[in-house]
Amino acid sequence: MSRHAKPDHPIHDLIVRRWSPYGFADRPVSAEDLRSLFEAARWAASSYNEQPWRFIIATRDDPAAFERLLGCLVEPNQAWARLAPVLALGVYQKTFARNGNDNRVAPHDLGLAVAQLTMEATARGLSVHQMAGIEPEKAAATYNVPDDAQVTTAFAIGYESAGDSRLAEGYRERDAAERTRKPLNALVFGDAFGTPHSLFE
Amino acid sequence: MSRHAKPDHPIHDLIVRRWSPYGFADRPVSAEDLRSLFEAARWAASSYNEQPWRFIIATRDDPAAFERLLGCLVEPNQAWARLAPVLALGVYQKTFARNGNDNRVAPHDLGLAVAQLTMEATARGLSVHQMAGIEPEKAAATYNVPDDAQVTTAFAIGYESAGDSRLAEGYRERDAAERTRKPLNALVFGDAFGTPHSLFE
Repeated sequence: MSRHAKPDHPIHDLIVRRWSPYGFADRPVSAEDLRSLFEAARWAASSYNEQPWRFIIATRDDPAAFERLLGCLVEPNQAWARLAPVLALGVYQKTFARNGNDNRVAPHDLGLAVAQLTMEATARGLSVHQMAGIEPEKAAATYNVPDDAQVTTAFAIGYESAGDSRLAEGYRERDAAERTRKPLNALVFGDAFGTPHSLFE
Repeated sequence: MSRHAKPDHPIHDLIVRRWSPYGFADRPVSAEDLRSLFEAARWAASSYNEQPWRFIIATRDDPAAFERLLGCLVEPNQAWARLAPVLALGVYQKTFARNGNDNRVAPHDLGLAVAQLTMEATARGLSVHQMAGIEPEKAAATYNVPDDAQVTTAFAIGYESAGDSRLAEGYRERDAAERTRKPLNALVFGDAFGTPHSLFE
C-alpha cells in the first residue's frame, strides 16, 4: 500500500511522495547527500534573514555520538529511531543577533528550514521522520546549548524501509496506516476565522 | 541579476529558485493554483498529525476583503504588499484538539506547511513573500480569531516582478540586493553546540 499523499488538488510529486516512515533501511547516507540536505535548509526564508536554525547531528557510523543523540529522544522514539542511520536535533536562536530582541517567529522559521531539508531528501530518495518527542533539557545539557537557543525537535534521516522486520509491531502497523488530513474548508478562511474562503467552500 | 540561491552544495532547482520578491506583477492567481498551493500545505507533517495550521486569505479582486487583510500588516509591509494579488495570514492552533494540552511545536509545524505551499508556488511559476511584520491583535480582532489560535505571519502570493516600477525605491533596491547566508559550519554541530560537525568543518 502506497503511503503517498492522496491530494484533492494536484500538487508537486515531491510533496506527494513525502511521508514519515518509522522503518529505515540499514544503509548509510552519503556525506554528499547530507551536505546537500543541510544546504537546502540553509537557503530557507527567515525574518530579517536571521537564519535562526541550528542543527546537531550524529550518524550511526560513530556509535558513541549516535547513542548520545538518541538519548535525547523520548523512549518511544528511541525504539524506532535507533535504526535510522542519521539523527538530528532542530534548535533555534531565540533572539536577533543584531539587537537581542525576541525573535517571535524563530520556531516557525526553523520549520521552514526543516521542510526544505525534507524536500531535498525526498528528491534524493531519502526520507525524514520529524519528532516533537524529545527531552529538550537533557539535550541542552548534553550539548552545552546556551540559554538563548532552544532545542525544539529531532528528526531521523535515511532510506525508507516501511514496516521493517526489526521494528516492534506497533510501528510496523503505523507504517501501514492510512494517511489522513483535515479538508481544506476547515483550514482556509475568508471573512472570519472558521468561515471557509469562497475558493474552498 | 538573478536572485536565485548560490548554493555551496547541489540542491533541488525548486529550492534554488525560491526567493521573496517585494515586486509582484499586476496579474491574478488562478483559483486552481491557489487550491493546489493550500493543498500542498495540507499534506505537511505535524506533531500527532494535529495539522495546527490555519489560513485567512484575501484576493485583490475583492477589494474590501483585500484592504481588510492588508490592514493587519505593519505599514512598511503594506507599502509593497498592496501590489500583490493574494494575501494570507498564517495562524496556528495552540493546543491539541484531543486533550487541550499545549502544542509546543505548533508554530514550527505552521512553518512546515508554509514551506510546502511555497515549494508548490515555485513549481507553478509563482512567488511567496513571507512576513513576520503583522499586527497580531488587530488581525485577531478583525477575524474573530479565538484565544486558542495565534495569528503569527502573513504572506503575499503572486507573479514576481522584481524591482517593479510601482514600488518605492527602497524596495526596488532590496529586490536587487545580493542574497547571503551563514556558512554551514555555523549551523550544523556535532560534539557540542557551536562546534561544527566533522562533515561540515
